[in-house]
Amino acid sequence: MDRSERFEHGMTILEKVDGEGGQRVVESLGDVSPELGHQVVAWAFGDMYDRPQLPPRDRQLVTLGVLTALGGCEIELDVHINAALNVGLTPTEISEALLHSAVYCGMPRAINATLVAKRVFAERGLPPVRNSGDRPASD
Amino acid sequence: MDRSERFEHGMTILEKVDGEGGQRVVESLGDVSPELGHQVVAWAFGDMYDRPQLPPRDRQLVTLGVLTALGGCEIELDVHINAALNVGLTPTEISEALLHSAVYCGMPRAINATLVAKRVFAERGLPPVRNSGDRPASD
Amino acid sequence: MDRSERFEHGMTILEKVDGEGGQRVVESLGDVSPELGHQVVAWAFGDMYDRPQLPPRDRQLVTLGVLTALGGCEIELDVHINAALNVGLTPTEISEALLHSAVYCGMPRAINATLVAKRVFAERGLPPVRNSGDRPASD
Amino acid sequence: MDRSERFEHGMTILEKVDGEGGQRVVESLGDVSPELGHQVVAWAFGDMYDRPQLPPRDRQLVTLGVLTALGGCEIELDVHINAALNVGLTPTEISEALLHSAVYCGMPRAINATLVAKRVFAERGLPPVRNSGDRPASD
Amino acid sequence: MDRSERFEHGMTILEKVDGEGGQRVVESLGDVSPELGHQVVAWAFGDMYDRPQLPPRDRQLVTLGVLTALGGCEIELDVHINAALNVGLTPTEISEALLHSAVYCGMPRAINATLVAKRVFAERGLPPVRNSGDRPASD
Amino acid sequence: MDRSERFEHGMTILEKVDGEGGQRVVESLGDVSPELGHQVVAWAFGDMYDRPQLPPRDRQLVTLGVLTALGGCEIELDVHINAALNVGLTPTEISEALLHSAVYCGMPRAINATLVAKRVFAERGLPPVRNSGDRPASD
Repeated sequence: MDRSERFEHGMTILEKVDGEGGQRVVESLGDVSPELGHQVVAWAFGDMYDRPQLPPRDRQLVTLGVLTALGGCEIELDVHINAALNVGLTPTEISEALLHSAVYCGMPRAINATLVAKRVFAERGLPPVRNSGDRPASD
Repeated sequence: MDRSERFEHGMTILEKVDGEGGQRVVESLGDVSPELGHQVVAWAFGDMYDRPQLPPRDRQLVTLGVLTALGGCEIELDVHINAALNVGLTPTEISEALLHSAVYCGMPRAINATLVAKRVFAERGLPPVRNSGDRPASD
Repeated sequence: MDRSERFEHGMTILEKVDGEGGQRVVESLGDVSPELGHQVVAWAFGDMYDRPQLPPRDRQLVTLGVLTALGGCEIELDVHINAALNVGLTPTEISEALLHSAVYCGMPRAINATLVAKRVFAERGLPPVRNSGDRPASD
Repeated sequence: MDRSERFEHGMTILEKVDGEGGQRVVESLGDVSPELGHQVVAWAFGDMYDRPQLPPRDRQLVTLGVLTALGGCEIELDVHINAALNVGLTPTEISEALLHSAVYCGMPRAINATLVAKRVFAERGLPPVRNSGDRPASD
Repeated sequence: MDRSERFEHGMTILEKVDGEGGQRVVESLGDVSPELGHQVVAWAFGDMYDRPQLPPRDRQLVTLGVLTALGGCEIELDVHINAALNVGLTPTEISEALLHSAVYCGMPRAINATLVAKRVFAERGLPPVRNSGDRPASD
Repeated sequence: MDRSERFEHGMTILEKVDGEGGQRVVESLGDVSPELGHQVVAWAFGDMYDRPQLPPRDRQLVTLGVLTALGGCEIELDVHINAALNVGLTPTEISEALLHSAVYCGMPRAINATLVAKRVFAERGLPPVRNSGDRPASD
């Protein structure tokens, strides 16, 4: 594949996984770092994401862990929580993955990521997550 | 204690330490991750914060250090700078704790945390901090 | 459940997931912070890990993402790469999860985590991972 | 030099390197941590930045790397991308430095820093960066 | 004060706070970055640590929080856990400060810092910390 | 270029920049993540490093900033401090770049990176760095 074919291939993966959010990020880079936009599409999606060794749902669980731990990635979490929904994770599973990350990177990072999820779920008109404990009395 | 008693116990600590700010964060999690809200209250405040081995003022000094170093925790710093004032740290001490952290995590993190403190101090109508050096000429 | 029951409950989960590695970490805390050991067992495993909203295999994918992104967590990665194998992730999937994380937290963090995986796989006598690209010519 | 001379000396460096942006940050600290403002000027600029062992252009390349990797430093990146332009780095070089950092700290950090550069370049009326690959077909 | 007086002043603070550990770090920098050694002494200790707005014990609580959150700072934690003991924090308080930080930066960072404390306490021949919960049955 | 040509192209850049250290890292990945090794070579060096928009010396300044700020990257700093020397940075400039980073990411990260530089300089038989202040009296 030549450079433009690699880009086209990556764009088909990006569209399937991220939908419009990913394209908007790539477009926003167009007049400041077209090469960064190219690499996000051709390398991150075309080369890496597309590999068959791990299905998209599993990749999004890893990505949620990484972005939550990094912190300061609200833009990317927005894209990737949408992506997580697109590839089959449920709101309850996403919420639980962020809760789980609190053990390893602390409450503030988990809260910040969860507040991004709250916004994404609301934008998509999803019902509230009821993922609390098995003893319902306290909620 | 059962689950709801653990929550109630934590809430009395959270209210004393964080005041309204902490409750607002917990409430904002209600429809996206009620369990994260529960764990912040029942575990972080009820189990951990309440331990007698370190008084609240000392805990807030540690917390300010951690949140400043992590970065990207403006929401949590807002809550915890308010908490620091609630448990007896003065604006001068808080400002100095953030200045001190600059040695270990660098100027940008310290500046970001200090600008949150500026907003919190202003919201509470506190007078300017005059914590500069002992040779007043240069300020 | 009282405090010791919560500890016992957590220990059954920890043993199933982490095996000996997790117990060794908890034991190593015994004479410096028995409460941290208690919370790792009773809270992290007993309360959080045990929740049914996400199965152990999914939790380990999130955990691998978080620990890789944090950096400086070689001890914990050792435990959790073992745990990942224990709950059903294959060496190829673990290797791929760490490769995937490189997109989001960079090559050095991914390399460091992968070198821990290399050591764990060798200790367990696992065969080399052959997870390279679909065009075998270059390897 | 006494304290006020050290401040004056640092201010001449800060004005040359950062221009108005740096002064605004120092001023914003005036009523919450005048000492942090003093140390940014007298120490960071007067003592450290002014050393002849590395010219300003080289210092800004290091600074861009550090701030991009830290994340959550949008305020400081704004100041230092302006500073980078002030000391002779071109928009193409700045854009490329941020692209380069993606290899080491991942795509999200690089994207976030690049979006700050986009804003700074626009505020200064600079033309779009055309730094893409040598095979123009795909852009 | 001139440059060498600032160094001498800083060294008296560093010796009081850090003891031999701090001096060893400064000496180890002597043939690779004497200026970094100078700034640690003259600036970090002479200018910053010595300020009266926060007593040494409070500074060490902030420092423990910052270093635990940063991660990968085992060398510095060794020095600063010794310093914490030197300025009056007890092993129980240090252990508790690190436990407290787990809420905000996660279990792995807290475990890593606590294992450094374990080594420091042992080197100084201190007795085991018994800081566990009020219900002793489970330990 | 096909996959193996991209690998070959990247390897010529990696050899020129990193020398043996880089190859050793890639080889060490061979039986655990051959694809990560491939991507380090073909993408990081072949695609990214080789771009003409920034010369190797400038890229190493950015890389030193990123790796110092990340922390926990001793293996990679070893490779990249060697690389920095290979592409024309002097020990004094490298030492100064790490000193400069202390302003932005704090003393501990700068000290850790500088101690790696010390080891690399010694391994290559380089003379001590005398980069201290312009007023030699204090050293």
